Amino acid sequence: MKIKSILLDIDNVLYDSVKLTEATRRNAIISMIEAGLPIKDVEQAYQMLLEIVKGYGSNYPYHFDRLLEKFGVKWNPHIIAAGVVAYDDTKHAYLKPYPEVIPTLLKLKAMGYKLGIISDGRAVKQWDKLIRLGVQHFFDVVVTSEEVGVEKPDSRIFEAALEALNCRSEECLMIGDRLTKDIAGANKAGVISVRVLKGRYANEKPVNPSMKPKFEIKNLTEIFDVLAKLS
Amino acid sequence: MKIKSILLDIDNVLYDSVKLTEATRRNAIISMIEAGLPIKDVEQAYQMLLEIVKGYGSNYPYHFDRLLEKFGVKWNPHIIAAGVVAYDDTKHAYLKPYPEVIPTLLKLKAMGYKLGIISDGRAVKQWDKLIRLGVQHFFDVVVTSEEVGVEKPDSRIFEAALEALNCRSEECLMIGDRLTKDIAGANKAGVISVRVLKGRYANEKPVNPSMKPKFEIKNLTEIFDVLAKLS
Repeated sequence: MKIKSILLDIDNVLYDSVKLTEATRRNAIISMIEAGLPIKDVEQAYQMLLEIVKGYGSNYPYHFDRLLEKFGVKWNPHIIAAGVVAYDDTKHAYLKPYPEVIPTLLKLKAMGYKLGIISDGRAVKQWDKLIRLGVQHFFDVVVTSEEVGVEKPDSRIFEAALEALNCRSEECLMIGDRLTKDIAGANKAGVISVRVLKGRYANEKPVNPSMKPKFEIKNLTEIFDVLAKLS
Repeated sequence: MKIKSILLDIDNVLYDSVKLTEATRRNAIISMIEAGLPIKDVEQAYQMLLEIVKGYGSNYPYHFDRLLEKFGVKWNPHIIAAGVVAYDDTKHAYLKPYPEVIPTLLKLKAMGYKLGIISDGRAVKQWDKLIRLGVQHFFDVVVTSEEVGVEKPDSRIFEAALEALNCRSEECLMIGDRLTKDIAGANKAGVISVRVLKGRYANEKPVNPSMKPKFEIKNLTEIFDVLAKLS
């Protein structure tokens, strides 16, 4: 079966989401302390922020307000704005593609493959990432969970991409870092699953066969080896 | 009476808010057109965006969503994100102080004056501006309408600043561009009003004596002439 299309996840596939997330939050904490947050231990404040993000979700807009509350500090717009500015500036600095991404995508396009994105999250936020990464024009389709109404591993999000690409599942690869989402979802949808060993889940083991990837790669450039094996 | 404190507005006093607002919105429109918004006339789309901002208020987060609706275009996260990224990048590029601002503030500090900000709007947003302008450490007090609960020209927002500075109204100057807000408010609160002739209201005439500024300056550096006259 000839492969026609390649679907990719964004976080930890196109850019280092782990490094960005850590740097944005740590720099926000440091700036808040410089603006007057009466905390000595950056690590303690960082861990507390992680708990708040976990509790309220990553799209909640008042993480820093809740952090001040947790430390019993009166609401302070200077401290909060210092966190927001540092977060924002750090995000823009770190939202750069892995060095191999643009050359690999260019080569895949030149080889005739259609490319797509399947991403969980708010559509505008995911497009914002693609634009800042400078890769928004590479993809024939971008499917987000917000638009489909279900998240990975639900098959419907993969089916939406396949339909838009006019591609059968077995003619399609899905490259992602998450066994429970990208790999389990691709396997269920009949798409050939390729795990990229990057990010915080790189050492995770599949707990059942449905999560087992068909291929594992360390780096996006190895996708050419996978394609060679499949042809 | 010796002047002890100087209060300032942010927009059009510390930076060119007119230029920023125009550039952010125009660049957002242009990027949205490049991302597929099927509009040929940038000016028409710009005017429509202005109407939407007027209707929904400047803090409303879905101006671009409403713009697509107005043009009968289906909600499109690529187009909206393109607008958001361009708006954001342009804001950061244009949020720079007028060239005379930092030298003037430094000189006023060196002369022993206390400095304060009185600004209508959301506190975190105003602090975000002060931080990006690099002037957040110059001010002994920052008072926002969100925190006081009333906007200029209400006297209470001026009284909050005077109290924080431990300063009597006649010992204090207020520098702003808006007759109806900064000047009328300062006059009512007994603060010496100084109009800076910048921004879109520079040609406005006072319609009654309560809006008449005690002094008018073209540029922040002329504040030293005002201080010399008052001493």
